[in-house]
Amino acid sequence: MHEKKIFLKEQEMPRKWYNLAADLPTPLLPPLGPDGKPITPDMLSTVFPMNLIEQEMSSNRWIDIPTEILEILYRWRPAPLRRAVYLEQYLKTPAKIYYKDESVSPAGSHKPNTAVAQAWYNKQFGIKKLTTETGAGQWGSALSFACCLLGLECKVFMVRVSFDQKPLRKAMMMTWGGKCVASPSPETEIGRKILKEMPNTPGSLGIAISEAIEEAVADKTGKTRYSLGSVLNHVLLHQTIIGLEAKKQLELVKEKKVDVVIGCAGGGSNFAGLAFPFVNDKIHGKKIDIIAVEPSACPKMTRGIFTYDFGDCAGMTPLLAMYSLGHGFIPAPIHAGGLRYHGMAPLVSQTIVEGLVTPRAYDQVKCYESAILWAKTEGAICAPETSHAIACAIDEAKKAKDEGKEKVILFNYSGHGLMDLMGYEKFLTGQLQPYSLSDGELNDSIAKMKDLPKAKACKTGKW
Amino acid sequence: MHEKKIFLKEQEMPRKWYNLAADLPTPLLPPLGPDGKPITPDMLSTVFPMNLIEQEMSSNRWIDIPTEILEILYRWRPAPLRRAVYLEQYLKTPAKIYYKDESVSPAGSHKPNTAVAQAWYNKQFGIKKLTTETGAGQWGSALSFACCLLGLECKVFMVRVSFDQKPLRKAMMMTWGGKCVASPSPETEIGRKILKEMPNTPGSLGIAISEAIEEAVADKTGKTRYSLGSVLNHVLLHQTIIGLEAKKQLELVKEKKVDVVIGCAGGGSNFAGLAFPFVNDKIHGKKIDIIAVEPSACPKMTRGIFTYDFGDCAGMTPLLAMYSLGHGFIPAPIHAGGLRYHGMAPLVSQTIVEGLVTPRAYDQVKCYESAILWAKTEGAICAPETSHAIACAIDEAKKAKDEGKEKVILFNYSGHGLMDLMGYEKFLTGQLQPYSLSDGELNDSIAKMKDLPKAKACKTGKW
Repeated sequence: MHEKKIFLKEQEMPRKWYNLAADLPTPLLPPLGPDGKPITPDMLSTVFPMNLIEQEMSSNRWIDIPTEILEILYRWRPAPLRRAVYLEQYLKTPAKIYYKDESVSPAGSHKPNTAVAQAWYNKQFGIKKLTTETGAGQWGSALSFACCLLGLECKVFMVRVSFDQKPLRKAMMMTWGGKCVASPSPETEIGRKILKEMPNTPGSLGIAISEAIEEAVADKTGKTRYSLGSVLNHVLLHQTIIGLEAKKQLELVKEKKVDVVIGCAGGGSNFAGLAFPFVNDKIHGKKIDIIAVEPSACPKMTRGIFTYDFGDCAGMTPLLAMYSLGHGFIPAPIHAGGLRYHGMAPLVSQTIVEGLVTPRAYDQVKCYESAILWAKTEGAICAPETSHAIACAIDEAKKAKDEGKEKVILFNYSGHGLMDLMGYEKFLTGQLQPYSLSDGELNDSIAKMKDLPKAKACKTGKW
Repeated sequence: MHEKKIFLKEQEMPRKWYNLAADLPTPLLPPLGPDGKPITPDMLSTVFPMNLIEQEMSSNRWIDIPTEILEILYRWRPAPLRRAVYLEQYLKTPAKIYYKDESVSPAGSHKPNTAVAQAWYNKQFGIKKLTTETGAGQWGSALSFACCLLGLECKVFMVRVSFDQKPLRKAMMMTWGGKCVASPSPETEIGRKILKEMPNTPGSLGIAISEAIEEAVADKTGKTRYSLGSVLNHVLLHQTIIGLEAKKQLELVKEKKVDVVIGCAGGGSNFAGLAFPFVNDKIHGKKIDIIAVEPSACPKMTRGIFTYDFGDCAGMTPLLAMYSLGHGFIPAPIHAGGLRYHGMAPLVSQTIVEGLVTPRAYDQVKCYESAILWAKTEGAICAPETSHAIACAIDEAKKAKDEGKEKVILFNYSGHGLMDLMGYEKFLTGQLQPYSLSDGELNDSIAKMKDLPKAKACKTGKW
């Protein structure tokens, strides 16, 4: 009998975050300002507190996790590493499937790892209120939770399609004292403009980000900042506790080698959180397949272009060098709301350019099929986002069976799907069809980026 | 720093259930048939499989847990014991507050502990389909989950008020292959009768039980049985794994003495599951306060009578000796749907008669206030049912502070509230008022029981 749950003690939790920027063969291209020149820290200071801007730009390999942050994370961390023995048995695969269970946090996903850190650094800097966007609601819940524990005010712009699909998320944010409105909202200039042009739009993460930044910058007391749930370097940094814990846990069960590492990827943070410590191993010579899975409805990594683009719809953010479908792209209203983002984190994008990470796209129907198989074998109900990682893990386990290899597969179970069950019902009653972005839509959206500065993809070590 | 999560390994999980019937100072009064005479096992055989009927009537102190059941429970068990240090700090109490976290099961509560066992015994007996009722949806989800893993068909009658309040529960049951309908339903004779008389009734557990039994008994192939989520001896038996695990975990952290044990109580199973191993200690001389908490809207233990009464609305079950508000009682539609039951398990009722357990009633507003305080300190969002136990734990921790005593308080965190958040929203927007059953309603309901056989409460050791 194999132990199916591998726990760490609190004192075994990592004390430092891992910064992949220190080890990338080719350094990241710098973010650019409106003038096309690299931005300076000052230019971000109305949006983020300076301590997080420093982290964003840091090239230190290891960054200490403040004790006060650890003390909050102990509410649910270290998160368990589990082995999916029941799925393995069903698949009759020789592969061992491990998954890091980030669904155990109070908000139900990996998001609180950075929400707590960001709220803490903002509070240290004297900030009283944070604004943010949310897709499926995981991030908005996480930031409401973190702000509640740290005594900050929290305002969340939630993409309308998810706001309507998942009313419980609003109630959850409210329980922790957060205020949640549907985006586009009448509360910001950009929101009003979009509502006028497209009154029935399902919304997008890009629009919600624009609204949240606008509200943060509009506070002339200087006590409000914006907080982003993914994409940026410091957000990915805070998530590396996932992969660092996983490594310790695999050591505990004497797994010396991991063959495949998988995460779903919307903005990139849960993927990076698990994968980056393994990307480091790969940079240093280990042979690992590292796979980032996106929905075929929003295929920036597999079909988008590597370019400079804005992080938000309205062009309020700096230009980031990343894979993108265009900042104006509004993905189809698939249920994996957390994966409906037009771009991919610059750090993740660069690992793809370097050939360290392989992107893969899956359709929502295949993903729901995998989610149902998971529920019927392992028992738990996963988030629609997470189902993308599970679909990939199943494919890799089948491949291992075909090859007759006892591979070790590790994926990030980024969140539970208990508040996303309406999507399951739609799938089970035949209301969901396979959906892939058409070439026409793709080309139209990419064509709109033609006037943006070019970002040359480089993997030779120097730009 | 105190470890806040106390885990057991799989091999440390209890191998036997504890049967309090073996240790009660006064034996249980027997269930009675329609003729007023004690029922025989045969009389239950169209409703339950014989192996569970034997368990129901067993007076063995310890009953082996079959290995196949353990293997399924390992998906989430042993469940963690946690310490609520953040709540302790907020309350500035010298008390230590431990809680057994049953919310970690795939269905979100303690219910799968018995659902898996019941489905397994039914399958052993050759049964192909189970019918049941559900209040808040926790039990229906749990049985759907268990039937899914064991390859049985599952049909759930869900109390209408909860069916409407919690649509995600239906989707959850569907994900595991269960079929869920609102009760009263047009699918049974009793359902049609009640719908005709009271088309707008919120329903009750008593009604739903009648419908589920009717459907089970109506299958003339003999391959369908009924499954109950609480109340009966064998159900409480399966839940004792909770308290047995908790004892081992308290030993691990060197807690030699528990002062207060608390559980919320609807039918009595989560309460009994945690409390009965400690009731045994109390019978053998230990000083422990053991508190069963009910809602003031459905106060059978604090204001009902000890009597013979039916377990269901239509009078299809045997008569059970228990605290009851009358089998026709329809509780107000409070959000703690799992506590909306007119009676209390005979085993729990007898511990109250004996003075081993103290009942206490709390109002829903006080309970939601406690749930919010819990979310804002510990982080997690509890089920409305569980909030009753938390409210009591808070009161006991305050009392310990007043007395200046370093007490050890243990309660059962019976389930999470992620699918019950509409109740939180109603509370937070001022839509919920305190509610207690009026004397008039209480007396009317109790008066209707006047023709039932009397059950003399006895605590002298012999009836």
